[in-house]
Amino acid sequence: MIQFILMSHGKMAQETYESAKMIVGESDKIEVVSMAAEDGLEGTKNKLEPLLEKYKDQKILILADLKGGTPCNVAIMYQAVYPNVRLLTGMNLAMVIEAVMSPIDDIDELQNYLQQVGQKAITKVEYEATMDDDLEEIDE
Amino acid sequence: MIQFILMSHGKMAQETYESAKMIVGESDKIEVVSMAAEDGLEGTKNKLEPLLEKYKDQKILILADLKGGTPCNVAIMYQAVYPNVRLLTGMNLAMVIEAVMSPIDDIDELQNYLQQVGQKAITKVEYEATMDDDLEEIDE
Repeated sequence: MIQFILMSHGKMAQETYESAKMIVGESDKIEVVSMAAEDGLEGTKNKLEPLLEKYKDQKILILADLKGGTPCNVAIMYQAVYPNVRLLTGMNLAMVIEAVMSPIDDIDELQNYLQQVGQKAITKVEYEATMDDDLEEIDE
Repeated sequence: MIQFILMSHGKMAQETYESAKMIVGESDKIEVVSMAAEDGLEGTKNKLEPLLEKYKDQKILILADLKGGTPCNVAIMYQAVYPNVRLLTGMNLAMVIEAVMSPIDDIDELQNYLQQVGQKAITKVEYEATMDDDLEEIDE
């Protein structure tokens, strides 16, 4: 099983997972690292490292909020030590839902797949007079 | 000024904005609609509609968490009534940061731009031995 670690400034990662739970339920594949404002680089390392140790015998895919942000940068540093870790930035809800749902067990394939899922999820939506019937709710 | 409304299942939208604040500070361009589990379609409409009324004389760009989810579907319904509203799904942190920062004042141009920003932000990042010096922190 591939393990996911969602990382963000503040509670964005945790709340993105909470939103995913409203749609697809809980998952033991997901861990979260929330970087508090006072954590800085060291505090964030102290939150991530125990998780990397816990799952060191598995493949790990980290989804981070922002390229160049501290959560992302901490993850990059640990890639030097943990070659089982892959990293994808720009996390959105579609990526977290697919992380929970996807049966793909090859880490590189999964990384590529979630990148595509995330990018395709960013789409312009427009009202069309004919579409009322299609507005089924998927989450209730 | 273009007004943004961030919409999500649960508090994801609010916490994505909180994360953006850690990097670029507060903005009066941002409003948030958090759909609670018990809100359903009607409760979400009741949260969104007052904001659409408040900003009815401006252009509004809604960033929603997920295409096909209730927050997105509620936004689509209101597009029939409020032609000043545009909608983009797949919200991530880079999009919210650029929403705060961008000086673009044409709604269609801004919608296209934020779509590109969001998609490009979803990227694979790998450690390279030479990159330690580049891991500057942008958020502290």
